[in-house]
Amino acid sequence: MKSLIVINPNSSQAVTDGIDASIEPLRSFGIPIRCLTLPEGPPGIESQLQADLTIAPMLDLARSQTDAAGYVIACFGDPGLYALRDQTKLPVIGIQEASVFTALTLGQRFGVIAILQPSIPRHLRAFGAMGVLDRLAGDRALGLGVKELLDRDKTLAAMIETGKKLRDTDGANVLIMGCAGMASYREPLQDATGLPVVEPCQAGVSMALGRIALNLSHSIRGGDDAG
Amino acid sequence: MKSLIVINPNSSQAVTDGIDASIEPLRSFGIPIRCLTLPEGPPGIESQLQADLTIAPMLDLARSQTDAAGYVIACFGDPGLYALRDQTKLPVIGIQEASVFTALTLGQRFGVIAILQPSIPRHLRAFGAMGVLDRLAGDRALGLGVKELLDRDKTLAAMIETGKKLRDTDGANVLIMGCAGMASYREPLQDATGLPVVEPCQAGVSMALGRIALNLSHSIRGGDDAG
Amino acid sequence: MKSLIVINPNSSQAVTDGIDASIEPLRSFGIPIRCLTLPEGPPGIESQLQADLTIAPMLDLARSQTDAAGYVIACFGDPGLYALRDQTKLPVIGIQEASVFTALTLGQRFGVIAILQPSIPRHLRAFGAMGVLDRLAGDRALGLGVKELLDRDKTLAAMIETGKKLRDTDGANVLIMGCAGMASYREPLQDATGLPVVEPCQAGVSMALGRIALNLSHSIRGGDDAG
Amino acid sequence: MKSLIVINPNSSQAVTDGIDASIEPLRSFGIPIRCLTLPEGPPGIESQLQADLTIAPMLDLARSQTDAAGYVIACFGDPGLYALRDQTKLPVIGIQEASVFTALTLGQRFGVIAILQPSIPRHLRAFGAMGVLDRLAGDRALGLGVKELLDRDKTLAAMIETGKKLRDTDGANVLIMGCAGMASYREPLQDATGLPVVEPCQAGVSMALGRIALNLSHSIRGGDDAG
Amino acid sequence: MKSLIVINPNSSQAVTDGIDASIEPLRSFGIPIRCLTLPEGPPGIESQLQADLTIAPMLDLARSQTDAAGYVIACFGDPGLYALRDQTKLPVIGIQEASVFTALTLGQRFGVIAILQPSIPRHLRAFGAMGVLDRLAGDRALGLGVKELLDRDKTLAAMIETGKKLRDTDGANVLIMGCAGMASYREPLQDATGLPVVEPCQAGVSMALGRIALNLSHSIRGGDDAG
Amino acid sequence: MKSLIVINPNSSQAVTDGIDASIEPLRSFGIPIRCLTLPEGPPGIESQLQADLTIAPMLDLARSQTDAAGYVIACFGDPGLYALRDQTKLPVIGIQEASVFTALTLGQRFGVIAILQPSIPRHLRAFGAMGVLDRLAGDRALGLGVKELLDRDKTLAAMIETGKKLRDTDGANVLIMGCAGMASYREPLQDATGLPVVEPCQAGVSMALGRIALNLSHSIRGGDDAG
Repeated sequence: MKSLIVINPNSSQAVTDGIDASIEPLRSFGIPIRCLTLPEGPPGIESQLQADLTIAPMLDLARSQTDAAGYVIACFGDPGLYALRDQTKLPVIGIQEASVFTALTLGQRFGVIAILQPSIPRHLRAFGAMGVLDRLAGDRALGLGVKELLDRDKTLAAMIETGKKLRDTDGANVLIMGCAGMASYREPLQDATGLPVVEPCQAGVSMALGRIALNLSHSIRGGDDAG
Repeated sequence: MKSLIVINPNSSQAVTDGIDASIEPLRSFGIPIRCLTLPEGPPGIESQLQADLTIAPMLDLARSQTDAAGYVIACFGDPGLYALRDQTKLPVIGIQEASVFTALTLGQRFGVIAILQPSIPRHLRAFGAMGVLDRLAGDRALGLGVKELLDRDKTLAAMIETGKKLRDTDGANVLIMGCAGMASYREPLQDATGLPVVEPCQAGVSMALGRIALNLSHSIRGGDDAG
Repeated sequence: MKSLIVINPNSSQAVTDGIDASIEPLRSFGIPIRCLTLPEGPPGIESQLQADLTIAPMLDLARSQTDAAGYVIACFGDPGLYALRDQTKLPVIGIQEASVFTALTLGQRFGVIAILQPSIPRHLRAFGAMGVLDRLAGDRALGLGVKELLDRDKTLAAMIETGKKLRDTDGANVLIMGCAGMASYREPLQDATGLPVVEPCQAGVSMALGRIALNLSHSIRGGDDAG
Repeated sequence: MKSLIVINPNSSQAVTDGIDASIEPLRSFGIPIRCLTLPEGPPGIESQLQADLTIAPMLDLARSQTDAAGYVIACFGDPGLYALRDQTKLPVIGIQEASVFTALTLGQRFGVIAILQPSIPRHLRAFGAMGVLDRLAGDRALGLGVKELLDRDKTLAAMIETGKKLRDTDGANVLIMGCAGMASYREPLQDATGLPVVEPCQAGVSMALGRIALNLSHSIRGGDDAG
Repeated sequence: MKSLIVINPNSSQAVTDGIDASIEPLRSFGIPIRCLTLPEGPPGIESQLQADLTIAPMLDLARSQTDAAGYVIACFGDPGLYALRDQTKLPVIGIQEASVFTALTLGQRFGVIAILQPSIPRHLRAFGAMGVLDRLAGDRALGLGVKELLDRDKTLAAMIETGKKLRDTDGANVLIMGCAGMASYREPLQDATGLPVVEPCQAGVSMALGRIALNLSHSIRGGDDAG
Repeated sequence: MKSLIVINPNSSQAVTDGIDASIEPLRSFGIPIRCLTLPEGPPGIESQLQADLTIAPMLDLARSQTDAAGYVIACFGDPGLYALRDQTKLPVIGIQEASVFTALTLGQRFGVIAILQPSIPRHLRAFGAMGVLDRLAGDRALGLGVKELLDRDKTLAAMIETGKKLRDTDGANVLIMGCAGMASYREPLQDATGLPVVEPCQAGVSMALGRIALNLSHSIRGGDDAG
């Protein structure tokens, strides 16, 4: 049986482990899911420069998965999403797009919790390309340094504070965690803000599993591409 | 084990049967799915008037399903979607919104095949409320009378012709079937147009199953609603 | 002579009386105006669920007005607006749409004073369907409990405070009162904020009277509907 | 009793006469309406250059109407609309904005019949400033020369043909006549296309009369302008 | 050799001198640049009324420049931009549009520093007509009186404070100075906020020089206008 | 004296030569311009996959130009635009963004002539990220095979035919050539369609030269990046 391949395009195994844990509830759907780390990636992706440089090795890694039934690119920013769709006819989902389209069924305006401030313009370009800016309440960064991000309590507190600002100042009805591998914060964040919280890897894997089951992809296998 | 409840808000058992067949590939996910017909609904929903009048009995029907794990409203037009979300904290998905958010990951501009011309303004209001008009290529009706719609060959031919117009004149890269219960046309339509085709009930059920597995809903159970 | 029928879809006669008083300046136009209460409605409409459930009895009430020259649905939220347009070829105006299109000629960005916080997502869906989100400055709730809303001084003070926030924080140049039957607050709110204030029932009735005089409706009487 | 002043900013008395006739059904509202020709205007306004040059004399003409209760600028293009609003605190309505906001309650997508092709970019700039482009189906010119426009039959035939293209090719559900003084074409155009047709001067005068009755203007008389 | 003509449509020679100084770095491009004051203009343009009344004399002044290779209208608000384009086939650039389209390559969301509060609705209409509202972070006024604006230190302090609000509260990544003739503030504002700052006259002249060199204009000289 | 570096990210020297010729009229501005070919690039860029794979070597090539005063990425699609902006504080312009922002001052709606059909979704994503979709008239492909594109007469004829469709069917007032290195077609295309035509490399270089002269870049050199 073929597997859904989830690629973490950074080189942190801890992040991949977090992704792997986050999608545990979706294993009951019966399709095997394998989460891979990209050894050539940076420890974390903090800029468009870093994101773009992961594309070439990510495409190679994807190509070598001969048992693939579909792919999820597990970095908020969806690096190489369309390149991978050019490379394969199998379903390919980016966790950023998946989290947005999931959030749009959970609240009228979505708020995004960005890990780092400089990511926000990148997010906005992506939301513009998706055509969903009318639904965006706001995108706010945690305001933590790299060291503080290693402290679970500080990170959760910052997430809750940021989520409440998105809710109260910006009018968000649903929150998106703008990162991969931090699903364990989802429930406490949800409880503290009273808002539904979308964890992108869960959203992406959930979406991809449905596509595999339905044999639904961006490109018709065998069809001549007229679109 | 609780079930996903799919409600066809018209009274045609044949449509419900078509829905039931369409979601067969998703039964392997392990969550029971029950498809219900709304006896109080009209044979088919052709106007906002008819759509709105299904809401009250649909809400009753939904409330009486004590084993519900979530709901799908299986009419393109999503009648009562927000009313049902007011009534329950369980996941509720409309097939129209689900088909649109699915299509948005399959092509840059989506085309909609409407069964009847007067439905188009209703669709456009919904797409405006969803905030996705920048991604709409076009929305075109089959141009068939009620009698012709009973003829499978004529209907398929009209779908293909309409799909090709959406592709060639309007620039659609992905198609949405603007109706429920006609999933058997999906594959031939896909083959003839070379475009991915989204069948709304499949999209809606796939999305709802993910929400149930992830315990992700529009309203936090137990939380105080601040959004 | 036929009359403009104004339907308050909640069951509060006091609200209907307020509506009736608000449109007094428009009686000089010479077209009789009759304001009706919907006995089957809730005392106040606070959710999409309640709004949707008023549609069926509202349609019945409308149908039974044999002297109707046109209709105004007098609830901010416009429940059943398109259903009633499906039922009749006479002019039908919703006070929400009328207030927005009136405000758009009075200031570049409009601010909405919502009575209750949970109404805001409903408003935003409606503004999206209307296609006017680029002109929205903000939508803010009074933040009063039901009991406080009965206190005229507290309510006016909250309206003024909310209006000033919409003006100073959100950049509104014109305000819309997001409710029916409170026209007596319009002038003091206008004086306190220095901004034009649109009272929706006045806006709706004014618009409907023009349509009746001009014989202008959504549906051509006798024409074959091709649109 | 004060009057609504309707200013035709071109110098053609025949156009003013047409405007005067068009608003006849609104005289029953009881507010006197006076239609004025701008002698300094060109015979017809065909460019932004001509439109802008009418503003100075139009402002003078408006200022000299000491019995004014409000103003309508009766040129599709609304020249000097905001300048006149800077000059007076009385209600000021442009027929272009009025026709658009009227059309938006009559159909989901509006089509505009432009007299001359070069006017279309000007219309689009205005619709963009109004924030209503998501509701525009199309804007098409009659394609007639100046001489042919004097021929009533040819003009009506071209209007009907253009209206049908807007309906069938562009998906318009309501039409706007992009000119002043041609209200006599409204009914036959409506009958031929089956779509509601908005005549801008009727829309503008109707709107302005409501504002006068309700004492509702862009600027609070006596208030200090904080917006 | 023909010259680029920069017209300051107000009558303040000091402003013209400031414009002249601001574009000094662009003189090395080799095309002569002449900056003119409009004697008929007001000392400063503070309303749409004043802006519109400058158009007629501005067009005359432009027409009389027989050595013109192109024009820049040097008032934030671009009065008469399209009228001048109707009058000449030479390149015509408005500094407002130029500053916006320059800013859009320097940051994802632009913030505008308006001199006076009442200018903001005018800006928003222009940005709507340009179709760039999705990229606007905010538009904020300095909040200074006319007298304080003469005080360089107070003005710079207010600009920096406003720029920081646009950056921190509204999320601007690039700033536009919403005025002409104040280029000397650009560098200190940039240093204080850490954001790129666009000075509109520099942006407009830079753009116009390119058009002249490339022989690229809105109207094809000799071509029949079919657009 | 430092130079503007123009990088053609494909490996065709003939394309680079075409770019070099196109910008000849801008050499008089006095800033040296050097056009480079990327040897690691494909002969032509036809997909997102190919575009993304040019980024890494393009960044290396850019980094090694020690005399750079700024950069232009000369591929319609702007591959690596934001990555290069992350790498350098010097001005960086993409020819796609430059051509769009140039076109927006030349006509109300722009039409794009794509070389290949599959590029269109890529363009639309970029225009969405730029926030300019309201100004797009249409994007149409030439419909030629690779071999036919080598035939100058066939290519010009297809460009003219496509340009006329964009003008007459889609309502374009200005055209953008969606490719690099074909500037010699600009004038005949302009003459045949009567519309201004933007050649992207000319637009990009013109814009970049202005930025260099004005010392205006996306990142403040020495400033702490707070945006």
